[in-house]
Amino acid sequence: MNNKAVFMQGTNNMITREVPMPEVKDHEVLIKVDAVGICGSDVHYYQHGRIGDFVVEGDFILGHECAGEVVEVGKDVKNLVVGDRVALEPGKTCGKCEFCKGGKYNLCPEVEFFATPPYHGVFTNYVAHPEDMCFKLPENVSNVEGALVEPLAVGLHASAQGGVKLGDTVVIFGTGCIGLVSLLSCKAKGASKIIVVDILENRLEVAKKIGATDIINAREVDVLKKIEELTGGKGADVVIETAGAEATVKHTVDVLKIGGTIVLVGMTPKDETAFNFMKLMSKEGALKTVFRYRNLYPVAINAIASGAIDVKGIVSHEFDFDQTKEAFDFVVGNASDVVKAVIKIK
Amino acid sequence: MNNKAVFMQGTNNMITREVPMPEVKDHEVLIKVDAVGICGSDVHYYQHGRIGDFVVEGDFILGHECAGEVVEVGKDVKNLVVGDRVALEPGKTCGKCEFCKGGKYNLCPEVEFFATPPYHGVFTNYVAHPEDMCFKLPENVSNVEGALVEPLAVGLHASAQGGVKLGDTVVIFGTGCIGLVSLLSCKAKGASKIIVVDILENRLEVAKKIGATDIINAREVDVLKKIEELTGGKGADVVIETAGAEATVKHTVDVLKIGGTIVLVGMTPKDETAFNFMKLMSKEGALKTVFRYRNLYPVAINAIASGAIDVKGIVSHEFDFDQTKEAFDFVVGNASDVVKAVIKIK
Amino acid sequence: MNNKAVFMQGTNNMITREVPMPEVKDHEVLIKVDAVGICGSDVHYYQHGRIGDFVVEGDFILGHECAGEVVEVGKDVKNLVVGDRVALEPGKTCGKCEFCKGGKYNLCPEVEFFATPPYHGVFTNYVAHPEDMCFKLPENVSNVEGALVEPLAVGLHASAQGGVKLGDTVVIFGTGCIGLVSLLSCKAKGASKIIVVDILENRLEVAKKIGATDIINAREVDVLKKIEELTGGKGADVVIETAGAEATVKHTVDVLKIGGTIVLVGMTPKDETAFNFMKLMSKEGALKTVFRYRNLYPVAINAIASGAIDVKGIVSHEFDFDQTKEAFDFVVGNASDVVKAVIKIK
Amino acid sequence: MNNKAVFMQGTNNMITREVPMPEVKDHEVLIKVDAVGICGSDVHYYQHGRIGDFVVEGDFILGHECAGEVVEVGKDVKNLVVGDRVALEPGKTCGKCEFCKGGKYNLCPEVEFFATPPYHGVFTNYVAHPEDMCFKLPENVSNVEGALVEPLAVGLHASAQGGVKLGDTVVIFGTGCIGLVSLLSCKAKGASKIIVVDILENRLEVAKKIGATDIINAREVDVLKKIEELTGGKGADVVIETAGAEATVKHTVDVLKIGGTIVLVGMTPKDETAFNFMKLMSKEGALKTVFRYRNLYPVAINAIASGAIDVKGIVSHEFDFDQTKEAFDFVVGNASDVVKAVIKIK
Repeated sequence: MNNKAVFMQGTNNMITREVPMPEVKDHEVLIKVDAVGICGSDVHYYQHGRIGDFVVEGDFILGHECAGEVVEVGKDVKNLVVGDRVALEPGKTCGKCEFCKGGKYNLCPEVEFFATPPYHGVFTNYVAHPEDMCFKLPENVSNVEGALVEPLAVGLHASAQGGVKLGDTVVIFGTGCIGLVSLLSCKAKGASKIIVVDILENRLEVAKKIGATDIINAREVDVLKKIEELTGGKGADVVIETAGAEATVKHTVDVLKIGGTIVLVGMTPKDETAFNFMKLMSKEGALKTVFRYRNLYPVAINAIASGAIDVKGIVSHEFDFDQTKEAFDFVVGNASDVVKAVIKIK
Repeated sequence: MNNKAVFMQGTNNMITREVPMPEVKDHEVLIKVDAVGICGSDVHYYQHGRIGDFVVEGDFILGHECAGEVVEVGKDVKNLVVGDRVALEPGKTCGKCEFCKGGKYNLCPEVEFFATPPYHGVFTNYVAHPEDMCFKLPENVSNVEGALVEPLAVGLHASAQGGVKLGDTVVIFGTGCIGLVSLLSCKAKGASKIIVVDILENRLEVAKKIGATDIINAREVDVLKKIEELTGGKGADVVIETAGAEATVKHTVDVLKIGGTIVLVGMTPKDETAFNFMKLMSKEGALKTVFRYRNLYPVAINAIASGAIDVKGIVSHEFDFDQTKEAFDFVVGNASDVVKAVIKIK
Repeated sequence: MNNKAVFMQGTNNMITREVPMPEVKDHEVLIKVDAVGICGSDVHYYQHGRIGDFVVEGDFILGHECAGEVVEVGKDVKNLVVGDRVALEPGKTCGKCEFCKGGKYNLCPEVEFFATPPYHGVFTNYVAHPEDMCFKLPENVSNVEGALVEPLAVGLHASAQGGVKLGDTVVIFGTGCIGLVSLLSCKAKGASKIIVVDILENRLEVAKKIGATDIINAREVDVLKKIEELTGGKGADVVIETAGAEATVKHTVDVLKIGGTIVLVGMTPKDETAFNFMKLMSKEGALKTVFRYRNLYPVAINAIASGAIDVKGIVSHEFDFDQTKEAFDFVVGNASDVVKAVIKIK
Repeated sequence: MNNKAVFMQGTNNMITREVPMPEVKDHEVLIKVDAVGICGSDVHYYQHGRIGDFVVEGDFILGHECAGEVVEVGKDVKNLVVGDRVALEPGKTCGKCEFCKGGKYNLCPEVEFFATPPYHGVFTNYVAHPEDMCFKLPENVSNVEGALVEPLAVGLHASAQGGVKLGDTVVIFGTGCIGLVSLLSCKAKGASKIIVVDILENRLEVAKKIGATDIINAREVDVLKKIEELTGGKGADVVIETAGAEATVKHTVDVLKIGGTIVLVGMTPKDETAFNFMKLMSKEGALKTVFRYRNLYPVAINAIASGAIDVKGIVSHEFDFDQTKEAFDFVVGNASDVVKAVIKIK
């Protein structure tokens, strides 16, 4: 066994290098990585070398959406054996702070998250990871689906933060990967009406195909008027914003039902966004936010295995491991066409 | 227009009589009844003349699961028009007590509920009902489905009390109508594994057909052992008891996961049931109960209309209005075959 | 018995007129009004003739915080008798819409609220009100305290929306009446540290006296730095904004703990306020809003009666009924001195 | 520094022995123990050598309610320094199972809990404990109060499971230590009426002194009738059972308000208890259970420090370390007099 990894080297550049096989600690398993999704954050680091305060220093391995096969187990490992296929939850948390103990480990300030500097990611053949962060995939869930558990968990958390439930009407702004996994999550929880808004027709078609009851192209239709019509003038129980645009953030409150909940998922482009809080107050609306996810890998895997969620529908492109740079360049150049690109490592 | 009603007269006897057309108050609509389901409680009154403290006095109209068409509207009616088809929520509540104001109107002590003495039910051609208790059916939801909204609401409430959510494992004891609508509800909310237990093979087959992932015939299999095996030794997140038998009530805690929730829906036969509270405490389990339902007609109708729930699958028999007595006698004589019988009034 | 009322006539003007005794409907009681608080909204109408879309037309009776004595009961009244002293919840709701049925009757679009045009208020000797909106005061709760139940309910709702609980750290912006009742509510629920921020020293002293653990004068101290110091760099579990100033709305997220909740109560002066949503998202913070209150009169009365809340501490001025105009003018001219002025009708 | 510990040796016998100083791991601190409470479970092990499946083998150190001073810190310790006084949360959990990650670490199957065989307790001079399980006591909280944080946390968890809130009526069965800390917890959360039931007059007097609004001696008064009278026929929002007697478990549902919640805390004497589930269902009541506590040490310490809870009121007896056996024998012989005995180690 030898191990290679793809490093970003400066911006818009990548090299492949041999790297040592990871040391497997007692509570860890060694994973032969099989499928890794390319996330918008990976692409952002690749192009800009930073996201906010997180700055890439030196050569850096991207990638945090992955699944693969257990090829070695540490001596304290109890629940996994060699040959198991697993999805890897990318954030190692301390387990001791008030957030970890309180069940909100996604807020742990000590988290070490794949591909968030200074912690390398998983565009590599082998990675060691704690057993409890590796979730066994059943036979009917593929490794590619396993890699997509990561973005799906964001959608599940968004719908959970919004309290989406059977019979609800939901508006989703944005048809990027996160918009689509939010859609899949809302649908699996029984939302009756899911209205998806974007400006890219091809992505809206994907949304329609995977479960949107209504799609709105904001370039062609008056969004507010259309949503008013579709909801009988009531607005949506839950509004999920994944586009991260100032205009859509502002619109969330306009299309919200009295007593409804807004969920902000997309990163807003500027520090401050003007918002009509008076309108939110007059509806006694709530606004929730999403930071990654928590306790959702088992839920996502169960939902995929049971057929409640078909996450394969969001994969638009696959590449081989030795095409990783080409894959990134393709995603950069074809942002509106790529829903989700996946690298097959082997 | 003339109006007839079928009255139970003593036990196991029914007569049909002309009755006056109901007076329609300002906030009421007049409904031409089209479909009425026969509920286990109707059958119990028919056979025994009472349920607990509720005693039938004199001739009495049964039936509380119904849908029909609006044929007249009171002068204060705002949201319904003649020709609308509606499902009728059977309990008129006071709107003023702490339970009504607090959103738990199903606990209103002043409730007037169809077919619960002394309030007559709806085996009749015409009934007047408050507008706000009549829920419009969309085109793709039939009147028979509208009648089934009532039992479905019980299943929705049971799953809500249990907090059933995407990815959960649920055990349901009993495959009567309420067991099956609980199953439909859990499935629509995304439960991954739904294990249904009964002793009637034909009903278990219905359960399997409408969404159970596993069925257990308690006459043939060791229930506890089988559930242990099916849940990897963990037990179920939620256990819903609809059989009302002492043995199944006791078993709820045995098959419960640590931290899980039991929901009691079925009426237990005796005043007191021996229960292992120590086992419940060692798991820090919760036990919730169900009294009818609240705020669930819109949810049920949305779920049927969107296809999230196919409630037609539980209808096993249909009868004409003039066969009402025959229908009741048939249900009494074929309890294990009848899942849900519906009377078509017209 | 004859009946007088004080009407605002144009802005900054009031007249007293005889008015007919109210007709008492079957489900209503007739109240001899005893104490009425002057709310900021009353003063706003008095000065400006409108609040947003609500415009005063013609002569108009203000006042919605009140208590008095039952002097007559309608024939359907069951729980009140002549001689009972009661606090009046000012909003009559429909009892039939989804919000009323769902327990969020404060969001009922049909509400008729005292002193919100076109519904007159209670600066009058006698008013008829539905029995279920009149809450009996125990012997040890005075009518003045009964009148203050109304603003207190806002504070209770604000703390409930924030999920304030035993041991929490809370920051409250603003020491107006609503800031102070929020403080009383948080304290009664066991918050350990309650930091109150304002620019008026005399009001901060009131806050200190009634339970603030720390007070910050924003004119003298760097608020963010001071709160960081007081919370060990963690920020507050709950931040309640009652000042309605753009600067304080913005600051809410700066002083919020990771995973914490902001509650907006104060009306912001402009339609849009610039807000750092990215910061909120990085903390996975929630933002809740408050529209009046629901189901809290019994809670407030219990809390006053048990001594958990001493609401008398916020009354700074009392006036007689025939001084109503003087009282309003005094409040207008001494805004920073008046915490809460109460009119004694008799 | 040398180290001694008191071991139970067989039942009803204790010896004191020198023991090695504990090794302090990197993430641990060494505590010089100062105060240790005697819990009912300690006494039960002392008398019977077992509790259910937990059997004492060989000489065994009891004690799990304790506080002391940090005298040494491991090299990874970040938040504590030598000289800090701390309360020790006794259960070391795995941090990796679904219960730990989900915030319910009290349900962790891998827990190692002081004085639960085979894990020794803290009747000893020095103990090493993980930093994150040691909670710093502020200056105004004594070590004896720190030792009482442990039972107090049970009361806090019981009231949390019951959802006790401002203005509630609560019935508590039992005035043992857990009954009294439940009372303190309910009071601190603002419960308006707290009715405590027992058969021991001296303990009922303690309950009255520390905050019960009403006490009922079940030997002298008809409990159900009295509670009906005290609650205006409505029953209690929350009923907390800490006595563990079959009769009181049964009574919980009789005194429960419609829609209320029962919390079982006391261990029932037999495997099965007959219970009227039909009555619970007719009220749509919920039944919750308590297994230890979670995330409550900071809450308890904040509440004691702020004065919201005065836990000293439950200490009835203090003993020196060299009187440990005498203390246990005294507690055994004077069960009805001892509310809480505390051993001062130094």
